[in-house]
Amino acid sequence: MALSPFDHPFLSGLFADPEIAALMSADADLGAMLRFEVALAEAQVDQGVIPETAASHIARLIDFKPDLAALRAGVGQDGVVVAQLVKQLRAQLPAAVAEFVHFGATSQDVIDTSLVMRLASVCDIFDDRLAGLVEDIDQLVARFGTNRLMARTRMQDALEISVADRLIDWRAPLVRHRARLKELRSRLLVVQFGGAVGTLDKFNETGPAIRTALAERLGLGNGAKSWHSARDGIVEFGNWLALVAGSLGKIGQDAALMAQNAMGDISLASGGGSSAMPHKSNPVAAEALVSLARYAAGSSGTLAQAMVHEQERSGAAWTLEWLVLPQLILATGSSTLHAGRLLTSINSMGRSETDASP
Amino acid sequence: MALSPFDHPFLSGLFADPEIAALMSADADLGAMLRFEVALAEAQVDQGVIPETAASHIARLIDFKPDLAALRAGVGQDGVVVAQLVKQLRAQLPAAVAEFVHFGATSQDVIDTSLVMRLASVCDIFDDRLAGLVEDIDQLVARFGTNRLMARTRMQDALEISVADRLIDWRAPLVRHRARLKELRSRLLVVQFGGAVGTLDKFNETGPAIRTALAERLGLGNGAKSWHSARDGIVEFGNWLALVAGSLGKIGQDAALMAQNAMGDISLASGGGSSAMPHKSNPVAAEALVSLARYAAGSSGTLAQAMVHEQERSGAAWTLEWLVLPQLILATGSSTLHAGRLLTSINSMGRSETDASP
Amino acid sequence: MALSPFDHPFLSGLFADPEIAALMSADADLGAMLRFEVALAEAQVDQGVIPETAASHIARLIDFKPDLAALRAGVGQDGVVVAQLVKQLRAQLPAAVAEFVHFGATSQDVIDTSLVMRLASVCDIFDDRLAGLVEDIDQLVARFGTNRLMARTRMQDALEISVADRLIDWRAPLVRHRARLKELRSRLLVVQFGGAVGTLDKFNETGPAIRTALAERLGLGNGAKSWHSARDGIVEFGNWLALVAGSLGKIGQDAALMAQNAMGDISLASGGGSSAMPHKSNPVAAEALVSLARYAAGSSGTLAQAMVHEQERSGAAWTLEWLVLPQLILATGSSTLHAGRLLTSINSMGRSETDASP
Amino acid sequence: MALSPFDHPFLSGLFADPEIAALMSADADLGAMLRFEVALAEAQVDQGVIPETAASHIARLIDFKPDLAALRAGVGQDGVVVAQLVKQLRAQLPAAVAEFVHFGATSQDVIDTSLVMRLASVCDIFDDRLAGLVEDIDQLVARFGTNRLMARTRMQDALEISVADRLIDWRAPLVRHRARLKELRSRLLVVQFGGAVGTLDKFNETGPAIRTALAERLGLGNGAKSWHSARDGIVEFGNWLALVAGSLGKIGQDAALMAQNAMGDISLASGGGSSAMPHKSNPVAAEALVSLARYAAGSSGTLAQAMVHEQERSGAAWTLEWLVLPQLILATGSSTLHAGRLLTSINSMGRSETDASP
Repeated sequence: MALSPFDHPFLSGLFADPEIAALMSADADLGAMLRFEVALAEAQVDQGVIPETAASHIARLIDFKPDLAALRAGVGQDGVVVAQLVKQLRAQLPAAVAEFVHFGATSQDVIDTSLVMRLASVCDIFDDRLAGLVEDIDQLVARFGTNRLMARTRMQDALEISVADRLIDWRAPLVRHRARLKELRSRLLVVQFGGAVGTLDKFNETGPAIRTALAERLGLGNGAKSWHSARDGIVEFGNWLALVAGSLGKIGQDAALMAQNAMGDISLASGGGSSAMPHKSNPVAAEALVSLARYAAGSSGTLAQAMVHEQERSGAAWTLEWLVLPQLILATGSSTLHAGRLLTSINSMGRSETDASP
Repeated sequence: MALSPFDHPFLSGLFADPEIAALMSADADLGAMLRFEVALAEAQVDQGVIPETAASHIARLIDFKPDLAALRAGVGQDGVVVAQLVKQLRAQLPAAVAEFVHFGATSQDVIDTSLVMRLASVCDIFDDRLAGLVEDIDQLVARFGTNRLMARTRMQDALEISVADRLIDWRAPLVRHRARLKELRSRLLVVQFGGAVGTLDKFNETGPAIRTALAERLGLGNGAKSWHSARDGIVEFGNWLALVAGSLGKIGQDAALMAQNAMGDISLASGGGSSAMPHKSNPVAAEALVSLARYAAGSSGTLAQAMVHEQERSGAAWTLEWLVLPQLILATGSSTLHAGRLLTSINSMGRSETDASP
Repeated sequence: MALSPFDHPFLSGLFADPEIAALMSADADLGAMLRFEVALAEAQVDQGVIPETAASHIARLIDFKPDLAALRAGVGQDGVVVAQLVKQLRAQLPAAVAEFVHFGATSQDVIDTSLVMRLASVCDIFDDRLAGLVEDIDQLVARFGTNRLMARTRMQDALEISVADRLIDWRAPLVRHRARLKELRSRLLVVQFGGAVGTLDKFNETGPAIRTALAERLGLGNGAKSWHSARDGIVEFGNWLALVAGSLGKIGQDAALMAQNAMGDISLASGGGSSAMPHKSNPVAAEALVSLARYAAGSSGTLAQAMVHEQERSGAAWTLEWLVLPQLILATGSSTLHAGRLLTSINSMGRSETDASP
Repeated sequence: MALSPFDHPFLSGLFADPEIAALMSADADLGAMLRFEVALAEAQVDQGVIPETAASHIARLIDFKPDLAALRAGVGQDGVVVAQLVKQLRAQLPAAVAEFVHFGATSQDVIDTSLVMRLASVCDIFDDRLAGLVEDIDQLVARFGTNRLMARTRMQDALEISVADRLIDWRAPLVRHRARLKELRSRLLVVQFGGAVGTLDKFNETGPAIRTALAERLGLGNGAKSWHSARDGIVEFGNWLALVAGSLGKIGQDAALMAQNAMGDISLASGGGSSAMPHKSNPVAAEALVSLARYAAGSSGTLAQAMVHEQERSGAAWTLEWLVLPQLILATGSSTLHAGRLLTSINSMGRSETDASP
């Protein structure tokens, strides 16, 4: 019985984003954690830190299905899932090699790396979707761009513009968001590996080489040190999500205003029905875009509170990220889907020169 | 595969609040919606608006199990679940009475009333829990109140106080929150019934009497008019939740600071384990209280954006509530549970007079 | 050269609220601090804690004009103004009584009490203004209430209602806000007096009696203990402000939508001019109400972060209140002024039955 | 009588940032507006749009001192300052050329361009300060880097690290913030020039050339169209500010925790005094950094609400920026100053190897 609107039994009809939800699911998280542990063992074999036989045993755990009830109890006890997960993994291994899984790593290494592994795919999806939305807008320009539209400033009629004039204002920030995403990826998609206190204390000189090898195996970037307590990459991504949702919220707000009956600036293929007024056609996607923009804006501000991450690891600030970021990702995902639906459902925009004057 | 931390396959080990989650579930929502429709029909029979036979048929729908997939599709189409739900309900009824279910009501009537019906129980639970936390603190006063504690202001040692001095500061706001809750209930737990545009347009003079009867049957308050577009009751409740989580967050922050090794101001029965440092005992519940307080604070600010609810019904502002409020309720529920766990896990506080001096 | 829009050299033309600004000014703050110190001395004479001659000397400081540059430097050094202010006060007193000013008090006692002394007047002003806005709406009901207006739900034409139907929705929350204000006053307008660590450590048994006498002299409520670290009264007030601004923001949003040229649902006496389009008449007050509502909503969420007030006094959380609360008060003050201007500038609403059909 | 803590008569002792405040002042704003109008006239002469004599007359207005009272009244009337400012400017010009000042421009062109002109300098200052803070940290590494420090995770003692290990975590995000700033400048520091509805409707083909020339004269970037309704550059900058304040807040939080008496992990040259406890030395700058981080985080979330900027110009969303952005800039400015003070006031960090064991 799901509580989030993004996977709610019926509200998900409005908000679901199955593609991104799959990446943010517990299954995907566990899968990425296992890939982390396997890649770590392999990287440690490369550096002669653990025996090759250990890595081959560990590699077989790649599809391990953990006891979820025990994981849940472990999170209740420890505040993080990793101690219990590693315990279950070790129970699968021969005693002689059991200690070599998760060797020298800490919970945050696994959890944060699992997150950014999946965010790499999330970023790809968002980039593709933004490109698609730009194309959708380009098609609208091609279809309706020369039509006339009353520009409105401060909610008042101003001067006539072309439909293309407004569409360009919808399009431009999406292109910039793609540029921003490209820039932030290198800061976000960085392996987390620092051990107990971020210093790779178990490894002496081999530590950095292990991290480098680990990053390569996982297709992630690497830094000079772990980023346990420096959360700017995460919060920057949250800010970016809110920017995207905000730009799409502007499109939604415009569409809802254009769709007012007295305006007739836009015609949508299908609107939502009303239980009380069958004659209505509600601009559901347009409104949802506004809701999601305001939700994302507020959520980005809440996420930013997690920047005050004290000492070498803050349980409080880190946990705050878990409460905010997945829903913010899903909200922005949903926003991109709604935007696509809205843009491709437009039957007409503005008034063609050949229309009869009002 | 749930996305919310409050019902996540393993993070729920830390955050779950099954009692409140049950009330906020889709099942409970649908159940309350059905009770609304049944009570509405009965109230309309009382006023001679619909035939008695209709109400008796409708009453049998009280345990109707809707087609969830169709509901989900309905929400995707309409932005709200009610049109599709009513369609399913009417399909269960003899043709002659089908029109009398949901008669004169609008989606918002059903959805908002279902919410406040369940919030009545949520308020009861919070009130009980706050009373319990006050008792927990009273027991700590009884056990450790006379012990000595270094008061700290601006993070610096100030003067010694008694443990009771600090516990009183933890306790006082909880008592005030109960008083606030009592006050706000009368504004929050009010039936929603206004029809298409809030004016009971289908009913003429009988409308207010139907609403009164409906409110009585559902155990809710009544107002002079529907509150479709006036969301202050909802946002006030969200603010109250953040106040509660905030006061408990202060307790958590204090406990985490007291539990610092160099302080030794508190001893907790059980701390969380670390995957990298077996010697550690992490104050998991204390940290979770801080996380939840910050989450609730930010969420209350986001919810407040829903006050700008344009015209007779704002799809955008209303939907924003759905994105924020359930999670905010769950977060505060989780916070009260963590506070109980934390307070009852305290083995000692402060330094007894008979302790050896350091 | 002021930075805040509320006292900015020219933006204040839009945002100023001189009446409330005066209460939130540094002058008013210092004046209230001096009243606190004088009343404290008098209360302490009553309890035989300090000599009567001390109080009479201290009473003469009621109009003391401190050296602001030195105060500013003091805040830079100490983070609070009081140490430096007390130093200046003591320099005005005979050596024999100098120590008796601020006797047994701490910075927070003075600063918080000064705040709530002034908030008492702020609450009075808000209550009066809300009453005035309710009257303004009542006059609109009297003038235009029977006119017809197209109700709009989800931004779409729904059914016709009367203008009164909408005005009632504007009015109802304002009445509730007055009720809320009455309730919260008893929790907010409470003297702060606890000494260094909130325990009145300098006074033994006489402490509570001094606080009671102090509260009476200042016209404030009293509690069982100081509220140094329990900030729920402050945050509750911040939440209330955002509720008020939110309800007025809804009025502003409605007015801006009604004033769209294609709607003609409202006629405003005067609109803002445009530097580029002389024909326009912008609904400036209506838009400002929306801006202020969104600002207040966000600010209330930020203020709520101050609930996590660690130990006996948090410099960090307390200072956060100073950054947020005054601006939030001013924003809501400005909002009430804009609402009055908007409501009284309405020349017509809706369409009278005798209007020619369109 | 200033209301903002950033220019408050005595709170500014803690929060003032005179260098940045000067850039955000009304004087600087007016000065930049005049430079805009002069540069615009010159660019229009280049394109043969207005007579050369007009530009030479307009150029003499570069130091014009407007009637502030009239400006303030103008903002009250119009919601923006420009109509009244232009009126005053035209009154200074010979009748024959008066119309050529502000020719083809709109309020938003002037106000937004003035903002980004000054933000260019603000960005320079922030970049320099961040570079300075990185150097300050480097000096701390040089002085104390090899000292030992107990790492703490989840508020519990973990393992010993070197002081350098922690300083690296303070330093790394500041370097990234400089990289981010470099990237975002090209999106932020872009001339605004679109005329009434963003389409340069007064100019036909010469419009883009005028904008290009204007951008060059003002040292700003240019885009394919005005960005009247696409506010992502502004909000991205607000997000960046909160990231900076957040990273510095983490340093402040760490320092406050290190300065706890029982820790003794840091020694600060000077702490704040207490009015009640002369023995105390409060970590004022450290706490202020935490306050400012939380303020900036919340403010960035509020600013992000301004992304929903409807149609060709939203009075409501644009005005919201004015309420939030200047204070957010000042808060982050103040944060960088506090960070510098804190870092350079550190007398010792950690425990040298030669210290006696505890």
